[in-house]
Amino acid sequence: MPKSSVPSPRRRLGRRPGAPETQSEIVDAARGLFAAHGYAGTSIRAVATAAGVDPALVHHYFGTKEGLFRAALEVPVDVDSLLNRVLTGERDAAPVRLAETFLDVWDSPETGPAMLAFLRRVLADATATDLVRQFAVATVMKRAAAGLLADVEPADAQARVSMVFSQLLGVVVARRVLRIEPLAGMAREELVQRVSDAVATHLRGVPATCPLT
Amino acid sequence: MPKSSVPSPRRRLGRRPGAPETQSEIVDAARGLFAAHGYAGTSIRAVATAAGVDPALVHHYFGTKEGLFRAALEVPVDVDSLLNRVLTGERDAAPVRLAETFLDVWDSPETGPAMLAFLRRVLADATATDLVRQFAVATVMKRAAAGLLADVEPADAQARVSMVFSQLLGVVVARRVLRIEPLAGMAREELVQRVSDAVATHLRGVPATCPLT
Repeated sequence: MPKSSVPSPRRRLGRRPGAPETQSEIVDAARGLFAAHGYAGTSIRAVATAAGVDPALVHHYFGTKEGLFRAALEVPVDVDSLLNRVLTGERDAAPVRLAETFLDVWDSPETGPAMLAFLRRVLADATATDLVRQFAVATVMKRAAAGLLADVEPADAQARVSMVFSQLLGVVVARRVLRIEPLAGMAREELVQRVSDAVATHLRGVPATCPLT
Repeated sequence: MPKSSVPSPRRRLGRRPGAPETQSEIVDAARGLFAAHGYAGTSIRAVATAAGVDPALVHHYFGTKEGLFRAALEVPVDVDSLLNRVLTGERDAAPVRLAETFLDVWDSPETGPAMLAFLRRVLADATATDLVRQFAVATVMKRAAAGLLADVEPADAQARVSMVFSQLLGVVVARRVLRIEPLAGMAREELVQRVSDAVATHLRGVPATCPLT
C-alpha cells in the first residue's frame, strides 16, 4: 500500500503516524490479542481498535496479518517468501529446495542466531508454543500441502506435511540445541541430500514405493 | 552382582549400606562428576571415591556406568534394553521395531509423562544437554550404528544414525511439545509406518535408490 493512501491517525486519533511508539503499541496490542484469542481468532481490525489506530495504519506497517504475527512473535524470517521459494518450480525438486531454503535460514549468520533464539522461546514458553502451532498449522502447513500435494486427499496431505515438519524440526533441534555429531557439523551438500531424501519419503506418503533395503 | 558379594562399606567407611541417603549421595556425586568431566571422563571408581563408598556398592546399586548415568539424569527408561529390542531380529524390520519401541516409550502412561519432563529438562538445561549429547553419541548411537550398519563405513554409519535420531527427536518435539496436528493425534499404525519409512530412508543412506516421486 503506498504511503499516500494511509489515512492520518493523527487527525482522527491524536497519534503521530510513523512514531516508533505507535508501531510498538500496535505490536503490544497484537501480542495480547494473539495470546488471548489465537491466530485465527485475531483480526487486523481488532488489533487496530485495541491499539487505538486505524486498521489501514496496521496494514501500512505490517502488510498482512502474517506480517503482524511475525512482528508480535519476533519471527526473524519472512515465512511467506520462503514458502514461495519452496513451492515455485519443478515438483520433483521441491524436497531439495525445501532442504536448501531451510539450511539457508538456519545456517546464515544473518538469520541463524535469531532463529535459534526464536526456537528456544517457542520450546520454553507455552503462549508462544500455542501461537506458533496455530500459525504453522493454519497457514504454513496448509499452504505447503496445497502447493506440493494438490492431488492428494487433504487429510493425507496434511499428515505428510506434518511429518516433513517433524523432520526439519528434528534436524534443527539435534544440530543446534543438542548439537549431536556428526549431524551438527555435517557439510551442507550431504545434509541437503539426506534431509531432502527424508522429506521426499514423507511427501511420497505411505505405503512407500521403495524397498526397505 | 549377587548381594552377598557386595563388600560392606560400613566396616570400612562407616556407612550403612542400603540406607537411602547412601544411594542419593552416590547419585549426587555422580551428577557433580558427570557435569564437571562429562560422560566419558567419569568413572564408577571416581564417583565412589567422591561419595566415600566402595566402587562395588556403586555397581551393586546401579549396575553399569550407564545405570548410574540414568539415575543421575533421571532418565525414565532402560535405554540399553530398549536398544537390544531394536537391534535384535531381522535387519529389514529394524525401522519398524525402532518406530514401535519409540512410540511405546513415549505413548505409554507409565513412561510417557516422565519422558516428556526429561525432554523439557534436556532442552532447557545446558548441563543436561551436554551430558545427554555425550551419552547419546558415545553409547546409544555408536551401538545402533554397529548393530544396524556393521557393513557401512563407520563415519557414514554414524551420519545415518544421527539422521535417524533427528527424525525421532523431531516427531516427539512436534507431537508432544508443539502438538502439531495431524501428527500429534495420528493413529499408532499410521505413525509407525510413516516414521519407519523415514528411518529406513536414513539407514539406507545417500544416494537414495528410490525415485523421488
